[in-house]
Amino acid sequence: MRRLTHYPLCPHSRSIRLGLGELGLDFELVYEEPWAWRPSFLALNPSGSLPVLELEHGLVLCGTYSISEYLADAYPQHPADGGPAPICPGDYEMRAEIRRLVDWFHHKFDREVTRELLAEKHYQRVVMERGKSPNSEVLRAVAKNLRYHLDYVCFLVDHRSWLAGDDLSFADLAAGAHLSVLDYLDEIRWQDYPSASNWYVRLKSRKSFHPLLDDYLTAQPPAAHYADLDF
Amino acid sequence: MRRLTHYPLCPHSRSIRLGLGELGLDFELVYEEPWAWRPSFLALNPSGSLPVLELEHGLVLCGTYSISEYLADAYPQHPADGGPAPICPGDYEMRAEIRRLVDWFHHKFDREVTRELLAEKHYQRVVMERGKSPNSEVLRAVAKNLRYHLDYVCFLVDHRSWLAGDDLSFADLAAGAHLSVLDYLDEIRWQDYPSASNWYVRLKSRKSFHPLLDDYLTAQPPAAHYADLDF
Repeated sequence: MRRLTHYPLCPHSRSIRLGLGELGLDFELVYEEPWAWRPSFLALNPSGSLPVLELEHGLVLCGTYSISEYLADAYPQHPADGGPAPICPGDYEMRAEIRRLVDWFHHKFDREVTRELLAEKHYQRVVMERGKSPNSEVLRAVAKNLRYHLDYVCFLVDHRSWLAGDDLSFADLAAGAHLSVLDYLDEIRWQDYPSASNWYVRLKSRKSFHPLLDDYLTAQPPAAHYADLDF
Repeated sequence: MRRLTHYPLCPHSRSIRLGLGELGLDFELVYEEPWAWRPSFLALNPSGSLPVLELEHGLVLCGTYSISEYLADAYPQHPADGGPAPICPGDYEMRAEIRRLVDWFHHKFDREVTRELLAEKHYQRVVMERGKSPNSEVLRAVAKNLRYHLDYVCFLVDHRSWLAGDDLSFADLAAGAHLSVLDYLDEIRWQDYPSASNWYVRLKSRKSFHPLLDDYLTAQPPAAHYADLDF
């Protein structure tokens, strides 16, 4: 069986769990603590980043970019052919828009919001030094960035069915992965962003999303509403 | 004609200039200062990042990821068919390796080396506050990171013709883009890395590389050996 090495609150890992789920591909999860830099994990992926997907025939795919493009390449079928929908559907224009938004969430949003929040509210506080107070200046900057990004999600879904166009794509899965981490940490005031909230409810109602809603870290349990499909 | 909006020392822009060059595609360059955040540029690419490629029929491609995958999608021909070699050649395994290394250079190397060096030695010093001294602690950390990355380049080309395998690919172009920026700034002691040096000489001897070697910023001219094909 395919093996996905991941950490539950890693947004990159989450997007691949969603991608595999949307394509109906079975996989087993292998838990890895990204701060541990275990030699056997570095032998698997020298960059030390998550996730890593090992395929049955031995191919090892390192990182979201390599994995998601492999999934787009290897599973291009259309629902009309009886298969699941591809994660990077459409013509050149649609695919360019999907990748622009994947890049937006997996790099810009990650740098401006998720990575900083995880550092302040999870890694430093829970994992490394239990009880350390977050840096309030960083949190203020992140909160400002998050408002801007959530407004952008609202703008996109006010004009489209899904983030990149008419069809669900890996852009939604990447964005959903980041926002689900923030929602786990109770960092989103959904009532201020009704369009984004409506899109997120549609996304988290999908079968591929259910395993993410079951994630539970004993050291830092999720927000009370995290797994609630109606909020 | 295609228009590529770029900044001469932006490594992401450079990799796309190389990709277009390898594919034999004509384009005109539009100069953009990435720190200026001009409204008309943000209207073209809301993320504010470089490069942006505008195609003749109006399609706008934002960012290296979207552009390079478009170039891989749209120009998949093999030299045997009379066309230029594709920038993402090979089977699933080779393409996964190309993308792993593109991700390595455009994100890991960028974060650990290029972005920090450009901030300390170009943006802060030359562009924003002329003459400001770089932070020596940052420079020491960057120098250490750079040694590790150059050792990794040596390891790869000691075992392969090009970074990802037998054929030149976008992995070489991404890596070459970053290293050429560092070489412009005279930050690489090539004599300590003979294998990487040999690979870089092969790369910079290619026709696609020549325009990069002509880059010249009056405020910060290149290192004396920068355009020398023999060092």
